Amino acid sequence: MMNDLIPMDECPVVILARPQMAENIGATARAMMNCGLRDLRIVKPRDGWPNPVALPMAAGGKSIIETAQVFDTLADATHDICFMAAATARQRDMPIRASEPRAIGSELVQKAKKGRVALLFGPEASGLDNNEVVLADVAVSAALNPAYPSLNLAQAVLLLAWEWRVAALSDIGDDDRSEPSDDSADDDDAPIKERDYFFQRLENALDDSGFFSSTEMAPAVKRNIRALINRATPSRQEIGTLHGIIQALTSKRRDR
Amino acid sequence: MMNDLIPMDECPVVILARPQMAENIGATARAMMNCGLRDLRIVKPRDGWPNPVALPMAAGGKSIIETAQVFDTLADATHDICFMAAATARQRDMPIRASEPRAIGSELVQKAKKGRVALLFGPEASGLDNNEVVLADVAVSAALNPAYPSLNLAQAVLLLAWEWRVAALSDIGDDDRSEPSDDSADDDDAPIKERDYFFQRLENALDDSGFFSSTEMAPAVKRNIRALINRATPSRQEIGTLHGIIQALTSKRRDR
Repeated sequence: MMNDLIPMDECPVVILARPQMAENIGATARAMMNCGLRDLRIVKPRDGWPNPVALPMAAGGKSIIETAQVFDTLADATHDICFMAAATARQRDMPIRASEPRAIGSELVQKAKKGRVALLFGPEASGLDNNEVVLADVAVSAALNPAYPSLNLAQAVLLLAWEWRVAALSDIGDDDRSEPSDDSADDDDAPIKERDYFFQRLENALDDSGFFSSTEMAPAVKRNIRALINRATPSRQEIGTLHGIIQALTSKRRDR
Repeated sequence: MMNDLIPMDECPVVILARPQMAENIGATARAMMNCGLRDLRIVKPRDGWPNPVALPMAAGGKSIIETAQVFDTLADATHDICFMAAATARQRDMPIRASEPRAIGSELVQKAKKGRVALLFGPEASGLDNNEVVLADVAVSAALNPAYPSLNLAQAVLLLAWEWRVAALSDIGDDDRSEPSDDSADDDDAPIKERDYFFQRLENALDDSGFFSSTEMAPAVKRNIRALINRATPSRQEIGTLHGIIQALTSKRRDR
């Protein structure tokens, strides 16, 4: 499948978490096609899938609708993703790194040279919940009219896909593109799946340890820990080290 | 009416020429509101106006729908516009200046300091016709997927409104914004209306003069002349000079 000049495996995956209206999924497919994106993943669509309502809005992006994959959980949908930006209209009370569309366009292009990257969008009415945002490496917000910053879902997809596309075409134009990345293969960023697996292990260990004095606060504290580590863009090796630390600490505790 | 940081009279007017679907007019209003634009003008909407179908898609942009103005001709809709960019998906066989969204964003910001500016969009199915494009100062096309570059109408509005907004916010951030423009008031660009009036006079004069040996070719030749002059961004004074030239030449001819 030809996608003009940009290698397919360097194109961001678009993930829609819990989308409500099939019309918006169709319009998303059209916007993706306009920008040369192909891989659409849908987590728990409210009105089921496949949904014939999506097709008219998809127009020339019909093939994207036909090949879209549906997942039960966001963790499943990100199984092969190494870097993900979550679109958010509002600031989150979380220490996740914040960025804006133009910078994210360039960052996606650079990260895609080392692994698959994704753009994550939440449901129309409420946006992403905090447990979804914290799976991402970075939260991206556009400096829209403060009186009404809420973009239609497919418009948000277009805005970020366009910023990616401009950055990607500019990158192709750069002479030094054939140069190998300055990071060695051993320094690969840890995929989201591996990070999630580590966080789950850590959280289970903390639950078992009585770390959380208040069960009410536990979810927020867990998100803050995830945000902290994700902000550091850990490598696979570093995640391995963190596993080792948990292993060591929990073994020690059991021995007591 | 507050529009965050950007003065209202420096915000581009959005002109939809012959739009077909009221849903798209509604979605356009939402995208405009997201980007802080307010002035929507509609030329010959296919399904009439006002149209209740537009409102649900407008969401938070409802006030833009309510204050939108309808015109019978594009010339009427541009009566107070000094600089206009026409959105086109395809290259035109016309010597109008071509540009791309990011450059147009900056150009709109600069031109808006001297007069009202506009973004012009054509009907969904066919886009702008050549007689509409040539009323503009510049044709703007986005480097989208060549396999399917056709944006939904409201998506095209968002893309260009976003590029304008990023440029406008960046311009506000510049320290030297309070400095007066380097052009004096006498050097004001000629408004579209004054240019159109001149072109009509010129075209009538050419028709009368037997300039066009082939009536079939006349429309294309007229467009090329318009494109040539518009590409030069003539000042009011220069348009006055051109009027004088026609006056002089046609008087002379009558005397013979």
